[in-house]
Amino acid sequence: QSVLASQKSFRQPKPCKHLELYYHDILFDGTDAANATSAKAANQTALGNFKFGMLVVFDDPVTKDNHLLSPPVGRAQGFYFYNKKNDYNAWFAFTLVFNSTENKGTINIMGADLMAEESRDLSVVGGTGDFFMTRGIATIKTDIFQGAKYFRLKMDIKLYECY
Amino acid sequence: QSVLASQKSFRQPKPCKHLELYYHDILFDGTDAANATSAKAANQTALGNFKFGMLVVFDDPVTKDNHLLSPPVGRAQGFYFYNKKNDYNAWFAFTLVFNSTENKGTINIMGADLMAEESRDLSVVGGTGDFFMTRGIATIKTDIFQGAKYFRLKMDIKLYECY
Amino acid sequence: QSVLASQKSFRQPKPCKHLELYYHDILFDGTDAANATSAKAANQTALGNFKFGMLVVFDDPVTKDNHLLSPPVGRAQGFYFYNKKNDYNAWFAFTLVFNSTENKGTINIMGADLMAEESRDLSVVGGTGDFFMTRGIATIKTDIFQGAKYFRLKMDIKLYECY
Repeated sequence: QSVLASQKSFRQPKPCKHLELYYHDILFDGTDAANATSAKAANQTALGNFKFGMLVVFDDPVTKDNHLLSPPVGRAQGFYFYNKKNDYNAWFAFTLVFNSTENKGTINIMGADLMAEESRDLSVVGGTGDFFMTRGIATIKTDIFQGAKYFRLKMDIKLYECY
Repeated sequence: QSVLASQKSFRQPKPCKHLELYYHDILFDGTDAANATSAKAANQTALGNFKFGMLVVFDDPVTKDNHLLSPPVGRAQGFYFYNKKNDYNAWFAFTLVFNSTENKGTINIMGADLMAEESRDLSVVGGTGDFFMTRGIATIKTDIFQGAKYFRLKMDIKLYECY
Repeated sequence: QSVLASQKSFRQPKPCKHLELYYHDILFDGTDAANATSAKAANQTALGNFKFGMLVVFDDPVTKDNHLLSPPVGRAQGFYFYNKKNDYNAWFAFTLVFNSTENKGTINIMGADLMAEESRDLSVVGGTGDFFMTRGIATIKTDIFQGAKYFRLKMDIKLYECY
């Protein structure tokens, strides 16, 4: 059975899987190694006043509710950097890593975090384990932003291709 | 209705969407913040003489023709780095961001920029909005290269999966 | 012919293509430019003792057997960084570049390298040329790890979408 991709013509389908998660980023300030879950790998440049070029590597906890101290159901491992000279704006690539009785496997995500928008869509470009070969959309919203120290994103992940 | 992926066997199909765009990169030199649209986040290493390891973050305008000052139809947000010790060669990951009456949404792209080739193919790995879940190929050619200051790529984007 | 993605429901299929390769990373130490194939673009941070935040850009040879000096059948071009504060763990994004009589084209890969596991799955998110639009899983195992200087990965790449 052979299907010509040029003939695929989908309308927006219903998700085959749906995850609601919270992502917590605690940026290392040089002294709080016990709590911090991310760190600056490259400093901001002198282009503009919005941290253009600052690169952050993270291994952040992911929880089911918006409490930082809730038991993590996974980790988000990857990086973001700021990339706008006249406002805050970022770009992300990361892996959600699940290793619980509920889910084992990973989800790979990348895309622009257009911080001026309330809601931003990233691409789910692949997955492994329970999420073998998945694709979809990860919609993120800033749940709280506490200066340079801590921010939290609500992630609404809709998978449209499941195996 | 269930389709076993192992049975999919496509010949190269016709694109379901086709975009021709120009990407303009003006690298910040420390003084031209008004014009610059990209900046060096990490310096080149001492490995070879072709900027190995130099990492550039960009928020570059994208236009329909090859004029830098044409009204942008979108932005390219992401990064590239040089990665060859005996020649110029680069690697890109970025998001094309569209927010016009014509197109709203994003296209996510990654791949090697084999600069020794006239024409190089990157992967379109996902999309959002008008480009929901798209996949395809972004073919780039160097349109002009003006030293460390400015270069322009012609991007020919063929999408083969459209919803 | 139109297929609603929400109706796709695959069981894990058989691969349409299978590649077994070895990846060799020789990290530049400042003096061995002739041999080195990767270099540190950003230094490790002070978060933990496992090189958190250290970013390495590479143009590494890929061979069919586990001998560093076997003729390369391709290159792996991309980057990795370490991202755990209490153990070694990494994140990769790269392109396999093939340019031989056997294969011409690229395979784009990204994902978490959960180094505590013997076997780790990354996502193949796209391809070009002979690997046009492919998707799949790249399973990596550490074949040897020689301190900061050299490591080798066995890569078992299974492609489940081939055109």
